[in-house]
Formats: sequence, structure tokens, C-alpha cells
Amino acid sequence: MKKQVLLVTAHPEPTSLTRRLVELSAKTLEQQGYEVLQSDLYGMHWKAVFDERDFPYRADPERLSFVTESGHSYSTGTQPDDIASEQQKLLAADAVIFQFPLWWFGMPAILKGWVDRVFAYGLAYGFKGAGNRYRYGDGGFKGKRALLSVTVGGPAEDYSTRGINGPLEQLLFPITHGTLFFTGMNVLPTYAVYGTGSLTAEGVAAAEAAWRSRLERLFEDTPIPFRSQSSGDYPDRHVLGGHVAIGQSGLTAHVADTPDGYSTAVSGETVMMGS
Amino acid sequence: MKKQVLLVTAHPEPTSLTRRLVELSAKTLEQQGYEVLQSDLYGMHWKAVFDERDFPYRADPERLSFVTESGHSYSTGTQPDDIASEQQKLLAADAVIFQFPLWWFGMPAILKGWVDRVFAYGLAYGFKGAGNRYRYGDGGFKGKRALLSVTVGGPAEDYSTRGINGPLEQLLFPITHGTLFFTGMNVLPTYAVYGTGSLTAEGVAAAEAAWRSRLERLFEDTPIPFRSQSSGDYPDRHVLGGHVAIGQSGLTAHVADTPDGYSTAVSGETVMMGS
Repeated sequence: MKKQVLLVTAHPEPTSLTRRLVELSAKTLEQQGYEVLQSDLYGMHWKAVFDERDFPYRADPERLSFVTESGHSYSTGTQPDDIASEQQKLLAADAVIFQFPLWWFGMPAILKGWVDRVFAYGLAYGFKGAGNRYRYGDGGFKGKRALLSVTVGGPAEDYSTRGINGPLEQLLFPITHGTLFFTGMNVLPTYAVYGTGSLTAEGVAAAEAAWRSRLERLFEDTPIPFRSQSSGDYPDRHVLGGHVAIGQSGLTAHVADTPDGYSTAVSGETVMMGS
Repeated sequence: MKKQVLLVTAHPEPTSLTRRLVELSAKTLEQQGYEVLQSDLYGMHWKAVFDERDFPYRADPERLSFVTESGHSYSTGTQPDDIASEQQKLLAADAVIFQFPLWWFGMPAILKGWVDRVFAYGLAYGFKGAGNRYRYGDGGFKGKRALLSVTVGGPAEDYSTRGINGPLEQLLFPITHGTLFFTGMNVLPTYAVYGTGSLTAEGVAAAEAAWRSRLERLFEDTPIPFRSQSSGDYPDRHVLGGHVAIGQSGLTAHVADTPDGYSTAVSGETVMMGS
């Protein structure tokens, strides 16, 4: 059976760089023999706001708890069709690629709302109703690959190791680690194009060539070596053991086997286009 | 004239801890003699998705560039009323408090969409049309205070210095530094209540008491000492100078005058309630 790749994308302008790269994804992946699934969030008029309308059959009609109602609607099969449909695509996919412009150092609201609504209790967190037993390397999306492809207005140097914005991979940690690896996915180093406001035709061509080569290695590239909860690195499942990442703290301590943590783990792989 | 404080809040359930803390904010701030402005995003049915409907009079009807159209609609006064109204509240406010549940280590989509739509080019970025000249300590919201108040389902230890999620203040860096300090605001250490799924009545009372005391010190507490772009710490406006934060890299390097950076800068101030 063909491997399936889901593209979750968030830009409404057909001629934008983001959308050009999405088209390239579909074409390249199909040429490689994969089946491509698409979630074009703007095109679908995706409902971004997670609210009471997402729970037509409430566990508690009096008081809205998102965790309770998310778990109840997921386990009873009473979720809205748009949510259930995205979950089915996710479960079918061998890899998920997110393509979006970086807005205020994160996802556009329409994409954040896709995560908020689709990543249900019992599936993406609280897997099997077992609290935090399955997370960070294990869970409902275990073994799938994930990859972020971001278009960035500012220059690459602003996102470098000592750049004024902070390193891109650290800014994206809540997504790569806290959202995707949390559910069990193997997350690849981020692909980024910088300076999108002033890209020349040559710059676009170079970005496309670099993206094509990332796509061709989608199932070969080495994921970011985030530490899994069950690895023994977190003996109590909450805090790094004293024998691990000695002398380290913060986000970078959660990446294994690199001399100085997260930045190094990914800096060699992050493609920096633009200026 | 009375000082004004804007509350931007994102929870639809009136009995939720988030909303209880919002009520406490309004009451406490009014008792102190401040004028309270509110943006209850769920109550307002805030439009979360930034799209072409936000630009009824386009600079370029053919191709949608968000930066171009944001700047054009802001400078020509053709923004939708809901966006202009929020900008007026922000400009009137001496302090802005964001109160929200932490969803996937970030803002709920409705709040991210408030930032995406309200933080216009020419005001929040590209201030005075001068590119990146005014940012990180200078800009359209210079001198206002900002404070995040977050309710967190998980236990505090998961967000500790070596906790499995990463330290809360580092996870929130794209908001505190990249969004609020970027526009010139002085950002206070985050207030957080943890373990909200299992809080006892005593826990709620303790959280409220701690929040009340933070509110009472809103204009006295020391902001996070983020390095400003114009301080000389970034001689080329992009990368830390070699004389600054020697041997440091990553997010923590952008906090001044603390022995080991960002975690230490805020760990003493972040209120950790719950378990």
C-alpha cells in the first residue's frame, strides 16, 4: 500500500511562496509514489475557534470543560465532522507536513485552531485515558513523521544562535516538541525560508530546490533527537534525571546526544534561504 | 487622569478558573482606582482568522500580501472596526493583561488571532514605516506594561528548570519577547496557576490571593530585563555583540544582568500554584 503524506497548510494567496512550496510538495511526493492528502485550511474555511459548538452532546451541559468535553465527544463519536475528518487523515498519514508563514513567531491562528480542535483528549493527549502515561515519543500518533516548513519575513541572522529573535528551532519548540513529539511523532528539523519579503527569482528557485531535496529525504532524514519520556531520561516522568544532561537546563536539555543541545542538533539541518 | 488597564481574555466558561481570575482583575484594579477596559474574546465572538475580508480596500487587489495590506489599511484608516477598536484600547492602556488557558504550550487560537489581526504593520511592527528600526524595547506600544496570566492543566514540575515540557517562561518567549517586548512593552514575569484540573477550593483561594498581590504590584514590579535593540547589545541590530552574554546562546541570552539567563531571571517571580 502506498505511503500517505498529509499536507496541512495555511495561506490563502495562491501565488504566495507558501502556496508555491505546497504545490511543489504535492507534485514531488506524488512523483515519488506517495499518496498526498491535503488540508488547505483557508480553502476549507476551517473553523479556528474551539468553543461550545464543538460539543453538541455534552458530558456536562452546565459547565464547559474543554478537556472533559473533548474526551467525551472523541470517545462517544459525537465530534463535529470537520474534526473527525482531520483526525482520520492524521491517523492514515505516515507523515504530516505543516506549511505556513511564521506570524509573531508562531502559527497563524487558523492553524493553531486546527491543533486546538483536532488534537483531542484520548487521542493526542490523555491517550487511552491514561493521563500522561503516553506522551513525548509515545501516543496516538506514534511513529508518524512530522515536518514544519515555514516562510519567514525577517533575515536569517535574526534567527541565528545569537540572533535578536532567538534561534528558530527554540521559538518553534512548543510546536515541534510540545505538540508533535508530545503525541509520539518523529519530528524532522525545520525547513525555513527567510527574507521572503525581498526574495529574488533566483532566491525562490533556490528555496524550491532545497525544499524538493528535503521532500525526497522525508522518510530518510534523522529526526530531532528529543528525549522520550519512556527512555529512562525522566525517571519520574516529569523531570530529567540527575544522570542526564548534566549541567544543562531549559529547552535544549530535552535533546539527546549533542555537544551543546538543541541549537547544535538542528542548526546543520535547518535550511537558511534568503537574507 | 486615571490609569487604564486592558484585560484581553480567552475563555468562554463563566465558572472557569480563568474567568474567575478575570473577575478578580477587574474588581481589584477598580478598587485601586484604575479604569478597566475589557476584551472578552469569546464573548465578543472575535474573528480569529486573518484573511482578505480584513482588507476591504486593497493596495493590490490582485495578490494578497498580509504585510502590504496590513500597512495599507492601517495607514489609510480602512481597517475593519473590530481591529481599529482594539488598537484604540491598546493605545489608551497603560498596561495590558492577557488571561488565558495554556493550550498546546501557547495561546488559544482566538487569542493568537487577536494578535495576528490587531498588531498591524506601521503600529506593532514596521513602526513609522521604518522597517526594523523600532523594535524590542521601542515601537508603537513603548512604555506600556504587559503581563500574562495563564492557567495550566499540568503540574508545575513539568515546567520547572529541567521539567519535561521545558520551563514555562521559555515556552512563552515567542509571546513575551517576540510579540510584546517587540512592540516596546515592558513585560512582567508570567503569573501561572498549575494543576488546574485538580485544584481544591484552598488551591483556588491561594491562586486568587497570589494573583491579587500581583495585580496590586502591576505598576511596581520589575519587568523581565530583556535586552533592548537600541541598548548597544546588538551593534548591528541583528545579533548580540561579542562583548555581551559571553558564551551564551539561545533564548536566555536575550535577558540581561542575571547569572545564568532567562530561567533565573523569572523563576523567583513566577507563581507556581497547584501541583
